[in-house]
Amino acid sequence: MIVVKVGGRALRSNAKGILEDVASLWREGERLVLVHGGGDMVTEFSRKLGVEPTFVTSPDGIRSRYTSAAELEVYVMVMAGKINKEIVSALSSLGVKAVGVSGADGQSVLAERKRRIVVLDERGRKRVVEGGYTGKIREVRGELFRALLREDFLVVVAPLAIDAEGTLLNVDGDQMASELAVALGAERLVFLTDVEGLLIDGAKVGRLSLGELEALLPKVGAGMNRKLLQAKRAVEGGVREVAIYSGKEREPVRGALRGLGTLINV
Amino acid sequence: MIVVKVGGRALRSNAKGILEDVASLWREGERLVLVHGGGDMVTEFSRKLGVEPTFVTSPDGIRSRYTSAAELEVYVMVMAGKINKEIVSALSSLGVKAVGVSGADGQSVLAERKRRIVVLDERGRKRVVEGGYTGKIREVRGELFRALLREDFLVVVAPLAIDAEGTLLNVDGDQMASELAVALGAERLVFLTDVEGLLIDGAKVGRLSLGELEALLPKVGAGMNRKLLQAKRAVEGGVREVAIYSGKEREPVRGALRGLGTLINV
Repeated sequence: MIVVKVGGRALRSNAKGILEDVASLWREGERLVLVHGGGDMVTEFSRKLGVEPTFVTSPDGIRSRYTSAAELEVYVMVMAGKINKEIVSALSSLGVKAVGVSGADGQSVLAERKRRIVVLDERGRKRVVEGGYTGKIREVRGELFRALLREDFLVVVAPLAIDAEGTLLNVDGDQMASELAVALGAERLVFLTDVEGLLIDGAKVGRLSLGELEALLPKVGAGMNRKLLQAKRAVEGGVREVAIYSGKEREPVRGALRGLGTLINV
Repeated sequence: MIVVKVGGRALRSNAKGILEDVASLWREGERLVLVHGGGDMVTEFSRKLGVEPTFVTSPDGIRSRYTSAAELEVYVMVMAGKINKEIVSALSSLGVKAVGVSGADGQSVLAERKRRIVVLDERGRKRVVEGGYTGKIREVRGELFRALLREDFLVVVAPLAIDAEGTLLNVDGDQMASELAVALGAERLVFLTDVEGLLIDGAKVGRLSLGELEALLPKVGAGMNRKLLQAKRAVEGGVREVAIYSGKEREPVRGALRGLGTLINV
């Protein structure tokens, strides 16, 4: 079984190529879980609906998106509604029976919300604010996904989780993919992004062990850093191989699996 | 097994009461499929996004909503995103493992799109226009719903279907509920709406046979007319009893099942 994470930008620039590749693998008998992103589209619809996206800066200088109640509403509509069902529709037109769910469905992906977070205000002073509706995944209950895979459905997952009180939470799509891969015992995990793999000083790294990965972490930017940490989490959790590749390429999933991007294993 | 259709207005005025009742039935071991509406909320978000809702009038004078491509996008976001996942979230907070899907998922509910429709223009002249993205349900494939019920999930269904080409379609929630009840072999079908049952000359009709139903059809308004036709379809398809009741009442599903509204059977 393969878990594929496709980022919003990769999807936007090459939805047809990515989904045709996914569909042909499914028709060959490969069982697949497809986790999608879509943050840019959430931002776009937030603006259209008059909800200005806000960002916060942590004490160690990392800027991240802040999910207010109003933005969570847009996030749910765009992620679990528009993007999820458009993927199901596109896969259907390619002959694939796909079922779109989120991690909130069946209380399958449980996340924990940060009640309060420390941020830097515009003058660089520390302030404590409400944590908003972003969560860290703590537990995956695989029953729903396994039942769908057993029925031969391709499973399309929106990066939305739920907490113990039933509150919907925005979770990172890369973390969703690695946690699902581990919980479902996937053999491989593929990250399709907008770069051709891990680049160090402009050169692509074709293959990487966990030890090498640790050493390279300080040298890479925030987006790739997060992917590498999730790749590490997946490999340590029993996933045989993690591939990172550009979703803009021809047959990107097959390309990733053949090692045209970066492959990470023990 | 019971299929419950809850209209958008009933949900808006008494979501807590309806979902608590549904949750307590589920905890008692009742298997449930909950179909929701939400047309008013689609209209509200369409306006917010600058998509003005359009209506058409058929040659026999019936006014109905027209689903353009832009409005379908909003319909999908609001129905399969916002409303569907907010119900899953609310049920989760009541201890229910609920899974939200649409009829498009797993190609479960196949509908047929009207390619062209005849409408009256503002001067009352007949015109042929593109049919838009509204569909009539032609076939229900129950595998997805049955698999979810088998795993003890409460199934929450958005009124969205798919056609043979993979196009997403807006379908009537009442039709979705009756077709699901027939396909899944439900014993009972409950319509929770914003009136206390079938009213004839101001008096509530407590019990109705199919023969009596036919005779009353010309006497009732468009919304109730459609519910009665769907009730007829369900009973003819093997559903033992159909109940129509107000979602605004206390324990509305139990009330409907006890016959506090209108009951329809052979």
